[in-house]
Amino acid sequence: MIDRPTFFHRLKETCPDTWEAYTHHPFVAGLGNGTLSKASFCYYLKQDYIFLIHFSRAHALAAFKADRIEDIRDAAATVSALANYEMKLHIDYCKEWGITETVLANTKEAPANLAYTRFVLERGMVGDLLDLQVVLLPCIVGYAEIGSWLAEGLSTQRLNNPYKRWIDMYSGEEYQAIGQAAIKKLDDLAMRYGGDTRFDALAANFQIATQLEINFWQMGLGAGK
Amino acid sequence: MIDRPTFFHRLKETCPDTWEAYTHHPFVAGLGNGTLSKASFCYYLKQDYIFLIHFSRAHALAAFKADRIEDIRDAAATVSALANYEMKLHIDYCKEWGITETVLANTKEAPANLAYTRFVLERGMVGDLLDLQVVLLPCIVGYAEIGSWLAEGLSTQRLNNPYKRWIDMYSGEEYQAIGQAAIKKLDDLAMRYGGDTRFDALAANFQIATQLEINFWQMGLGAGK
Amino acid sequence: MIDRPTFFHRLKETCPDTWEAYTHHPFVAGLGNGTLSKASFCYYLKQDYIFLIHFSRAHALAAFKADRIEDIRDAAATVSALANYEMKLHIDYCKEWGITETVLANTKEAPANLAYTRFVLERGMVGDLLDLQVVLLPCIVGYAEIGSWLAEGLSTQRLNNPYKRWIDMYSGEEYQAIGQAAIKKLDDLAMRYGGDTRFDALAANFQIATQLEINFWQMGLGAGK
Amino acid sequence: MIDRPTFFHRLKETCPDTWEAYTHHPFVAGLGNGTLSKASFCYYLKQDYIFLIHFSRAHALAAFKADRIEDIRDAAATVSALANYEMKLHIDYCKEWGITETVLANTKEAPANLAYTRFVLERGMVGDLLDLQVVLLPCIVGYAEIGSWLAEGLSTQRLNNPYKRWIDMYSGEEYQAIGQAAIKKLDDLAMRYGGDTRFDALAANFQIATQLEINFWQMGLGAGK
Repeated sequence: MIDRPTFFHRLKETCPDTWEAYTHHPFVAGLGNGTLSKASFCYYLKQDYIFLIHFSRAHALAAFKADRIEDIRDAAATVSALANYEMKLHIDYCKEWGITETVLANTKEAPANLAYTRFVLERGMVGDLLDLQVVLLPCIVGYAEIGSWLAEGLSTQRLNNPYKRWIDMYSGEEYQAIGQAAIKKLDDLAMRYGGDTRFDALAANFQIATQLEINFWQMGLGAGK
Repeated sequence: MIDRPTFFHRLKETCPDTWEAYTHHPFVAGLGNGTLSKASFCYYLKQDYIFLIHFSRAHALAAFKADRIEDIRDAAATVSALANYEMKLHIDYCKEWGITETVLANTKEAPANLAYTRFVLERGMVGDLLDLQVVLLPCIVGYAEIGSWLAEGLSTQRLNNPYKRWIDMYSGEEYQAIGQAAIKKLDDLAMRYGGDTRFDALAANFQIATQLEINFWQMGLGAGK
Repeated sequence: MIDRPTFFHRLKETCPDTWEAYTHHPFVAGLGNGTLSKASFCYYLKQDYIFLIHFSRAHALAAFKADRIEDIRDAAATVSALANYEMKLHIDYCKEWGITETVLANTKEAPANLAYTRFVLERGMVGDLLDLQVVLLPCIVGYAEIGSWLAEGLSTQRLNNPYKRWIDMYSGEEYQAIGQAAIKKLDDLAMRYGGDTRFDALAANFQIATQLEINFWQMGLGAGK
Repeated sequence: MIDRPTFFHRLKETCPDTWEAYTHHPFVAGLGNGTLSKASFCYYLKQDYIFLIHFSRAHALAAFKADRIEDIRDAAATVSALANYEMKLHIDYCKEWGITETVLANTKEAPANLAYTRFVLERGMVGDLLDLQVVLLPCIVGYAEIGSWLAEGLSTQRLNNPYKRWIDMYSGEEYQAIGQAAIKKLDDLAMRYGGDTRFDALAANFQIATQLEINFWQMGLGAGK
């Protein structure tokens, strides 16, 4: 028996080069072999704090857009997890890198961050739950793929890698399960909301969101130069 | 060659009794045979003024939600037509019935009006262009059907019917063309936005919107008692 | 020292009769003295289930609209509490009244319910966090006032009142604290979002929302006849 | 008698350097003295086409968010003017520069464009009419100031300047009146929607929007290198 490819897989297949450029970006490779500059990583961490806020809001939007209680519950659980647990984890992790909560609160949103978060929120507002989930996936599932790749990668520096904890987090079981759940949710939504018919329009937005993830890494890389 | 039924026709077929109850409502019959009380009609006219405002806003929402310039243009043309031409026509017509613009401006929105307009706007916000067009159709196309029915009806009072101008307006070529254009637009959107897959959910909203139109007539009828 | 009246108090003062008609509605009085018909109460319970879904969505909308992490957290906590805890509590309570989860899932939304929930959601979409909180308050704080009134009321039937558990819930410390928190939140938002300048427009929406609560009780009462 | 400064003026005063960097950007100066490369200008023209689409949508959003008929009419008139007149003018103008309509339709939205348009739309969705107007102003009024500056500027090349028509358009009476109307509209909205109390939050968004305009010029400039 051959499994039908997931909707996520089909979206990814429409822009393999963009997806590769995102998940194997020099920033990511630098995390893996430990050569990424601290300046790049800290810049990224600060922007990621702001990203988390808007990402929480995007999931809140999903709860608002939901027609089924299960969808509301799923989205609400994610908002709570992000706005409470994840954000506190992030704040703690930033402290290890010498970034205080005050610094985080006063960080100015970079254009690449702004472009990505607002694109996601705007697409989510304009469309339905499926449109929203499609533009959320590059982040959710991309980080899971990156985590796996780095954890298994030949070129990954396993000893004394300053980014080990970051790699552990995204390659860990908990995050991998989040990635899998998001893929499954998309399949469910694609079935209910006419994903096949709307495939081209959705794939176009998926590719833009993925490109905006590349720009996000690039922003971090550029900050270290 | 047999024409494929329009998407609108298919939606209507899912709730024939509700559709019939709306388009052949006693209020409508009363317009046709001229027996509707003036109190009912004037109450209706005042509420319809508020309805037009929210209906304009719903079409503005369609322009915001559009991904193609043609869709923006179509929606923008409708907003302009409604907010300028139609609304002024309505104000003039109300004057003939002794309802001044001040009275219109101070009319309190009735619950039946509120329920209908906010349902349409809320569905439009939550979903995509197709969701929005589906809940707009009962009003746009329903009035065209009502106009035709009254113009051709055996029981229609053609001489000295105080509602003759109303009937003429909705049975006239101009409004009939608007109704036809809306049906065509829905077919276009249904094709682009996966209407077949989403049919059941769309049909459920279509029926609610139609029921809310019934309640709107009922509100007018009740005001005359 | 004289306390400055809360923003909520000031809103309430603009429509004392409407507020009184809502919080002392015959439906409420019937809960207090135990004379409300079972049919009315069960109808109300079923509609309240649907109401809870949309109410959760309205709080999710607040999280989406938030500009501060605390606001996101507050709103997300409410969505989770509603969509998980409250909804399960409600389902359990309905079972006691012989209403199964299947019946709840198949309940058709009544016009009075639709008018209220969609008005709240639409106002919330159109305006900012303050606009949204204003139309949420009649429900949140009104139920707290009703709970207190019934718990303390002279005419309240304390023995063998079938509605005792309902009264206990809304007069209980936990719910009263929710009401107080909502009043405080509104004061905070009114200060940040220019509540004084916008008072008249906000008060108009507050009154409409309160009127729609009256219609909600009336719907329940009517169902028992 | 001393005029009270406009709300727009007060916003501008909070970020004079950003405003100056936008309205006197090297791209703008290059238009004035005719030294801007054709490649830069053509890149800008293509992106501006996409910008116009989203800008139309932002004004449609304003019509949706309006509570007064005049506000709906104002916004609808702008959408129609943009989606019909302005867009056709733009298409014609692009032809003069050798950019066909097909090229325009296939232009990929640049990140700087995406960041700006989606920020405006997102702020507009999250907030009320005042929030939306504040982030629309840097574009509308900034172009009017740029037009005036170039028309009057000492360093402006008046003979054989390939960008003369562009300068004439934005310095012309018609566009200057649009700029003035937008400033007046903002004063009106600021009064009705509590602009004074909300000043700091609005000014922060105004500055971001202005910065995103700088990035837009920078994008054009970068394309010519």
